[in-house]
Amino acid sequence: MQALDKNNNKPLYEQLYEHLRDDMLAGRIKKGEKLPSKRMLADQLQVSLITVENAYSQLIAEGYVRAVQRSGYFAQYSGDTAEPRVREPQNHFETQREETPQQQSASETLFPFSVWTRLMRSVILEQGMRLLQPVVSGGAYELREAVSGYLYRARGIFVPPERVIVGSGTEYLYNLLIQLLGRDKRYGVENPGFPKLPKIYALNNVRFEYISLDKSGMSSDELYEKRVDIAHISPAHHFPTGIVMPISRRCEILDWAEGSSERFVIEDDYDSEFRHSGKPVPTMFGSDGYERVIYVNTFSQTIAPSVRISYMCLSESLYRLWREKLGFYACSVPAFEQYTLARFISEGYFERHINRTKKRFRRVCELVTELISRYPNAEISEENAGLHFTVKAPENSEKMIDDCGKCGIKITHLDEYYADCSCCPADLFLVNYSNANEERIAELLSS
Amino acid sequence: MQALDKNNNKPLYEQLYEHLRDDMLAGRIKKGEKLPSKRMLADQLQVSLITVENAYSQLIAEGYVRAVQRSGYFAQYSGDTAEPRVREPQNHFETQREETPQQQSASETLFPFSVWTRLMRSVILEQGMRLLQPVVSGGAYELREAVSGYLYRARGIFVPPERVIVGSGTEYLYNLLIQLLGRDKRYGVENPGFPKLPKIYALNNVRFEYISLDKSGMSSDELYEKRVDIAHISPAHHFPTGIVMPISRRCEILDWAEGSSERFVIEDDYDSEFRHSGKPVPTMFGSDGYERVIYVNTFSQTIAPSVRISYMCLSESLYRLWREKLGFYACSVPAFEQYTLARFISEGYFERHINRTKKRFRRVCELVTELISRYPNAEISEENAGLHFTVKAPENSEKMIDDCGKCGIKITHLDEYYADCSCCPADLFLVNYSNANEERIAELLSS
Repeated sequence: MQALDKNNNKPLYEQLYEHLRDDMLAGRIKKGEKLPSKRMLADQLQVSLITVENAYSQLIAEGYVRAVQRSGYFAQYSGDTAEPRVREPQNHFETQREETPQQQSASETLFPFSVWTRLMRSVILEQGMRLLQPVVSGGAYELREAVSGYLYRARGIFVPPERVIVGSGTEYLYNLLIQLLGRDKRYGVENPGFPKLPKIYALNNVRFEYISLDKSGMSSDELYEKRVDIAHISPAHHFPTGIVMPISRRCEILDWAEGSSERFVIEDDYDSEFRHSGKPVPTMFGSDGYERVIYVNTFSQTIAPSVRISYMCLSESLYRLWREKLGFYACSVPAFEQYTLARFISEGYFERHINRTKKRFRRVCELVTELISRYPNAEISEENAGLHFTVKAPENSEKMIDDCGKCGIKITHLDEYYADCSCCPADLFLVNYSNANEERIAELLSS
Repeated sequence: MQALDKNNNKPLYEQLYEHLRDDMLAGRIKKGEKLPSKRMLADQLQVSLITVENAYSQLIAEGYVRAVQRSGYFAQYSGDTAEPRVREPQNHFETQREETPQQQSASETLFPFSVWTRLMRSVILEQGMRLLQPVVSGGAYELREAVSGYLYRARGIFVPPERVIVGSGTEYLYNLLIQLLGRDKRYGVENPGFPKLPKIYALNNVRFEYISLDKSGMSSDELYEKRVDIAHISPAHHFPTGIVMPISRRCEILDWAEGSSERFVIEDDYDSEFRHSGKPVPTMFGSDGYERVIYVNTFSQTIAPSVRISYMCLSESLYRLWREKLGFYACSVPAFEQYTLARFISEGYFERHINRTKKRFRRVCELVTELISRYPNAEISEENAGLHFTVKAPENSEKMIDDCGKCGIKITHLDEYYADCSCCPADLFLVNYSNANEERIAELLSS
């Protein structure tokens, strides 16, 4: 292993993560090969144990490495040496940690409302009558440029501003995507998954299939079996199961998509900003060399649901098709909101807000998992992401639900997210802590 | 004829209009019957000639009366005595006059921007963190209440606020309506007409038919022949021909719609605020006793295209269906814009703005028609509505287009609005004066 460079701007754990990842991608570490123990590697590299832990955690989160209890760490993925599937992330690595709001905007209470309203007022002054002018179909250029810059910094992907298309909410964009990709296509949605998606496909009278998940996320085998054309997935953090799709499954799904020029992947990255630890999981959009992936994200989670601004990133060819087929639509977001959000992002407030929110929710998540693990036999599946996780609670679930409810933690049965609710294990629950009250949990823990 | 009441709050011309209209609806004046000449009626009623002229103009605009050159005025419509089709307008009659912006927002230059921004600032202060909260699916209640009140005052229709559904632009609402009314339906669009409509229906893969227009607007015979389920029309002022649909055709279309519970009329009233003279033409929504009409309107024309707020009014039964099928969608308009617009309407600024704009455009329209009528054989069809009219110009059209272009008057051939452009008369042009420069026209007229 090449020595880590302590004078490099990149954190050591990230350098280590990249070395190991590149070794696996290049086939220098083979699939199934055991990695050195954390302590041994720390000694060998003369770095702290925590540096190695962080690097391993990230590799586990992204599916390169598997941890086997009492056995150690094993490479799960090995690329061929020809061409690494995963492109080098192009950004300056972010040392951000994560957290997530889900459904409700949990970040709301931390939102720098006074900054936002100050920007609103200054947009009114500066833009003047320009506020009355319509913006172009894809959205105000200022906002698309700000989003492009943010994606480069935070998600390591470079999307030219014109290929960022702004719309009033992801639901609106899904409707547009059906018009863009075609109604004759067969869409595949995650089962379990967001219940709104099948509703939107059904209202559009397009054929769609429920695709089941295994522990790595959407089954790529079923995509072939059910002859799906468009796979609609959330690989960074699946709702409600919390699965982070490992690199192996991502590759399988990209392979599937490359099998036909009619196949596409809609990557819903709604939750990526709020991973609790490690760096954000890379996007599939960024590792897609064949223009098969459409990236979709929203500001409803990260700013406020009332803002109604989402965006999608298109490949060059889909962008041309969008212009031709859908470019006549007026942009559905008011100009004023676009200018305000553009300034909020480009002046750095957005990323600062994300960081504050992540810290807060990491703390809350620790409290909530501590609380829930006190119930006998409760098995928590927490993926360091999202404002939700799942718990298997065979006993005493009523008491757990009741106690947690008093602290603002919402625990619901998972069955409402299944196409057929009888497929859901009876003892599986979704824990949503976006509105959790820290003080109450702390009281309960100390009682 | 019953004497007019000079102490009544209603203007005399309106009282006269209502008397004559009611006499025709009740069958007391028969279809084809000649009305007294304007001068004779003015003498008989002891009112000014202008009062009679205004009443007759309104009756002509709404299709009750036909003017035959050098012959006089004839009743065109006669109802049966049983039940008048047109309900009594429920509002306090508006003495407003009209004008229209079309495509571009011509009202923009007159828009009270400082009032708008003052309201923006006070909404920020007053609503505070509530701005971050999502509004309900149909839109903020304040706005729906304000729109309901406006429709009552200005259009004489009563729609309970909850049945006003707010969305980000009419294009968005058309997409929703297809989901609401069904994709198995056959839609009928006006030919010529707005080119965006067939595009939206095509992108939704729903069957649609081009329905031709005669001088009264969309042919009701063709609705039967082509087995249309949903007729999409703009009866108040058709674009681009400027036709105001007369009462007889409105009744034919409502009769058609009542023939099946699957038939509906989408009434696009985009242009109704800007009639130049007379009172606004009544809505079909208001005369629909069988819940067949959906009313759609937008603030893009009257405020600014950048605001992106439109709305639709649903019948009780369609509102229930909307809640059930589409109520899961998040409202697509940011909360902030909705609160601001609600105040702009409810504090009276909106209607004052409309009135100012109408006056301005009536003046501009007079100048433009005077200018164009100077070209040999130019035949203007001006319906006292809209910011556009058509002109037949067999000769010298290049010079006319060129001269007018220098004054900001845009003259284009009408063929782009036809499904088959070869159906458009070669000498028919659309005159759009929304950006006309009054001073330049005045100069040209005096030169």
